[in-house]
Amino acid sequence: MTNGSASTPDRDGVAAPPTLAEVARAAGVSIATASRVLNNSTRVSPEAYQRVCDAASRLGYRRHRAAWGRAQTPVRAVAAVIHAAHRLVFTEPFFARFIGAVEMELAQHDMPLLVTNVSGTLAETVGRYLRAGSVAGVIVVSDHGPLPLSGSLASLGLPVTVVGRPLHPYQVPYVDADNRGGARAAVEYLLGRGRRAIAHLAAPPDTGPGADRRAGYTDAVRAAGLTDLPIAYGDWSQASAAHAMQRLLDQRPQLDAVFAASDVMAAGAVRYLRRVGRRIPDDVAVVGFDDHALATQVRPALTTVRQPIEQIGAVAVRSLLAAAAGELTPEQAATVLPTELILRDSA
Amino acid sequence: MTNGSASTPDRDGVAAPPTLAEVARAAGVSIATASRVLNNSTRVSPEAYQRVCDAASRLGYRRHRAAWGRAQTPVRAVAAVIHAAHRLVFTEPFFARFIGAVEMELAQHDMPLLVTNVSGTLAETVGRYLRAGSVAGVIVVSDHGPLPLSGSLASLGLPVTVVGRPLHPYQVPYVDADNRGGARAAVEYLLGRGRRAIAHLAAPPDTGPGADRRAGYTDAVRAAGLTDLPIAYGDWSQASAAHAMQRLLDQRPQLDAVFAASDVMAAGAVRYLRRVGRRIPDDVAVVGFDDHALATQVRPALTTVRQPIEQIGAVAVRSLLAAAAGELTPEQAATVLPTELILRDSA
Repeated sequence: MTNGSASTPDRDGVAAPPTLAEVARAAGVSIATASRVLNNSTRVSPEAYQRVCDAASRLGYRRHRAAWGRAQTPVRAVAAVIHAAHRLVFTEPFFARFIGAVEMELAQHDMPLLVTNVSGTLAETVGRYLRAGSVAGVIVVSDHGPLPLSGSLASLGLPVTVVGRPLHPYQVPYVDADNRGGARAAVEYLLGRGRRAIAHLAAPPDTGPGADRRAGYTDAVRAAGLTDLPIAYGDWSQASAAHAMQRLLDQRPQLDAVFAASDVMAAGAVRYLRRVGRRIPDDVAVVGFDDHALATQVRPALTTVRQPIEQIGAVAVRSLLAAAAGELTPEQAATVLPTELILRDSA
Repeated sequence: MTNGSASTPDRDGVAAPPTLAEVARAAGVSIATASRVLNNSTRVSPEAYQRVCDAASRLGYRRHRAAWGRAQTPVRAVAAVIHAAHRLVFTEPFFARFIGAVEMELAQHDMPLLVTNVSGTLAETVGRYLRAGSVAGVIVVSDHGPLPLSGSLASLGLPVTVVGRPLHPYQVPYVDADNRGGARAAVEYLLGRGRRAIAHLAAPPDTGPGADRRAGYTDAVRAAGLTDLPIAYGDWSQASAAHAMQRLLDQRPQLDAVFAASDVMAAGAVRYLRRVGRRIPDDVAVVGFDDHALATQVRPALTTVRQPIEQIGAVAVRSLLAAAAGELTPEQAATVLPTELILRDSA
């Protein structure tokens, strides 16, 4: 039932597979037109498109048929293990951007990316699966909590690269943005604009980015001699940030600025501040982190710290492939990429 | 460098790994508290949480350490191959809901899900990788176009289940919603409310759901004796739907209803209709398809056709595992689940 192939009984290569010319003839179009349809490369008339599709289906045409059927050099794949709640993967734009960048970099090596989302019970099963040798290496994203995955995977002998500074003592290569420096620059900018009651809407402190952005905030306010400033935690979501913003205002009704640990959380803070009638940035300045497309869609547009997510993805792939080849340089083992403060309207 | 393990030099099992009791002692908490932290099961004080995390990291504790390190029954995984543009996977809520459902069903079998997103050049590489025996089977989602993946993968001998009716002649098991019946019911509802100039904002016709929802629309308007009604195509995105809505109004300025092939596209139509001053539903009634959370967030809330996405995911897993075990029943080879019209404010 699963192997049925209505029009290619020659599946084992005994008879010749249908050629592009045969598809074109059956569809009553030129070879050039059939090729355009099958490569999705240029526009053709809907009628010709449909005729070519029908003919290709009917004849069982497959592009580079040999490549599908025959054993060749084994294909190596890379796994991305996302250690985060399922919901977060689809709502925090970091993941879409990062995965897209990793896919693009791996495509240059003709390697597929397999993404798996682990948030608890399956961690050991995933570890055992990956260890069985089915992938060339593993990129671990959003690792966190009391039992981070990256240490366990690395100690199994798998090539591993972590995105974000690991909080555990296992020595694992990692790629990170300068979260601490970026956060410090954001808060120093607020200080330079005369803000003093600067709160921090923080990300979970059991993640590298959460811990480091908080540390950068603390660096800057301490250097300015400010104490007793409020910090509240969100879980990276807009809803959690709106609640945290409410707690911050309860603690410090006269606060004049908020540094949020992500753009999504900054958007949640903006939403809450507007609802309670605070003007942004006049009453409360808001700075985010990431520089997602979202930052320009929020009103007012977010001043934020840009981290080079696409570059992080590309560098993570290069680091991982170097590690898999036993050629990891000390520089690649701990790469920290610079961030940049982007000024818009919210601060 | 990748295998470093600062605190477990006993990686080969020569010395005993740290126990839960040792972690608890090092953290100065009870075994019960340490266990709660390490299982993320109940709330503990932030201080105790941090102390346990620190102790676990310092000692190199890993839960069920033996399970990670030793060969056991080989772990089998399932792959979900999403044949769609990267952007679509993260903006059309179908994918998040479907993947979540498949993950949950597979977790009951202790099997991980590996998701790979194929949109062109890597298709053959992915096919070769999967064929090498690294997965128990493949669920193909959003298959489309002149060279669908599911036929090729099935003809390689891999257990395959397709989500959505395949448009190609290969016999591959599939799970689908009753797209045609659901679409027909939506349009019949509009007809019953006295609407006559009913346009269709269609999904790509080279996908099963796109073709079948259009067919259901055509069934209903033909049965009512209506002809020359406009159809415009979107690519599942909000932006494409807004443009298609504009074309529909150009063709038929007095249209009084739109049946959109997805909630996301319905939201794009609503946005455009409001921008040009049409009242919904008074001037133009709008019906979507899916019943995503989005349907209740749009203003006015969308009348839509609910398809049971979570159930589709669960059934796809069961069908695939049955096929992999050689136990697929004829009923499982072609499952079509019912849809339901949900009445809200937009029509």
